Order: sequence, then structure tokens, then C-alpha cells
Amino acid sequence: MALPIAPQSDTCSDAGTEPLMPYPQATALADTLKAIADPTRVRLLDHLASVPGGTVCACHLPGQLGISQPTLSHHLKKLVAAGILTREQRGRWAHYTVVPAALEGVRAFITATGAPSDIPRAPRN
Amino acid sequence: MALPIAPQSDTCSDAGTEPLMPYPQATALADTLKAIADPTRVRLLDHLASVPGGTVCACHLPGQLGISQPTLSHHLKKLVAAGILTREQRGRWAHYTVVPAALEGVRAFITATGAPSDIPRAPRN
Repeated sequence: MALPIAPQSDTCSDAGTEPLMPYPQATALADTLKAIADPTRVRLLDHLASVPGGTVCACHLPGQLGISQPTLSHHLKKLVAAGILTREQRGRWAHYTVVPAALEGVRAFITATGAPSDIPRAPRN
Repeated sequence: MALPIAPQSDTCSDAGTEPLMPYPQATALADTLKAIADPTRVRLLDHLASVPGGTVCACHLPGQLGISQPTLSHHLKKLVAAGILTREQRGRWAHYTVVPAALEGVRAFITATGAPSDIPRAPRN
């Protein structure tokens, strides 16, 4: 008598055995991702990465981005609140600087996720 | 006579001279970031990166994540729609696999932004 064969309908891969990322760590990563998940904020951050020292004066930004000063302020506030930019008042104008460490967790997560099994996973906090 | 000195209130850094990231490229990056900017989706992607081949059967996920099957389906649909996961039906169960190339643009952007002036900027599309 032939051995029973598992029906096709029950085929499934093995479950992973690694513990899941702790929820607080996932929430922190999601919050940082949300803060940058906007076209204007992506352009702002990309622009800041291109200027010497990663610092730019708010006075130069609206014209370059094609947005109003209030709209710019809204986006900059979101990035400062998320800890991704710091704000420093120099005389009349605020200057904004990228905080590289604020993106380190996201960078590790994206790098590990984009290369399954090739690169170590994002570190656990 | 002393030379005039620019008042402190007018102090500001130089404007950057690099062209801004094109808006369609920024929008595409923002859309991908939005798709992963959720704690459950972060945990899902982190989990997928830990399993062999980056593929997991949907049947193993709800228990591990502590969510219902409909909630899981909602999150998986978002990731498939964003091109970050592929879905393959094997018999009764759907299997999901990470698409590493879908995260390459975000990875380059985050890496360049997190290290101003040290690393080349995200490539222009």
C-alpha cells in the first residue's frame, strides 16, 4: 500500500523560530518612519544631507522647495519632534541639522529587511 | 573707520547648490516609507528577514504576532500593494516573500541622510 501523501492544500513552509522584534522597538521604528514618510520631508532630508555639515538656514528653503514658510515650518516641526533634526536659532533665522543617530535604527532595519539571510538582523533593543 | 559688520540677526548659512530630489522620486520613497511605517508591518518584515529564503506561510503569523487573521490580511495587503512583499498561493495557504529590490531606494536614501557628507547621496532616478 502506498504511503499517504500530504494533500497539496496543507503545504506550508516552516514557521520561523526567532523571537519577534519587541513591540516597543517596532513602535519606535514605525514612528521614525512615519515622520519621514512625506515627499516634502524626504526632499528636505535629502537636501540637508547635501549641504556642508548637514545644516541649512530656514531662509533658503521655501524657494527651493516651492512651499510657503508656514508649510515648511509644519514639516520642520515634525522632523524636530521626531528627533531627526535639531533646531538652532542664529540671530533672525533658525538653522536645522540632521541627527544621524536618529536614523540608525531605521537604517539597520531596512538593511536587514532588504537582504534576508545575507545581513544580520536589526539589533534588539 | 571700521568696516560695517553684518548684524547677528542676518547671520545664516549658505544655501545648498545641489538640485533638489525630483518630486516623483520623493513621492515614491514616501509611499514606500508609509507602507512600512506601522509597528505590525515592521515586525512582519523583521520576521520575514529572519526565516530561510525570506518566505513565510500566513498560517504561522497570527499567533506569533498576536493579531487576528483579518488584521494580518490587512497589513499583508498593504505590503503587497507597495511591492514590498510578493504573495504566492501554495495549496490552502498564501506564502509571502520580501522583495529586497523594493527597499533599495529607501535604503540608499536613509544611508545617505544618516551620514551627511560622508556617503554619496541617494541616486537620482
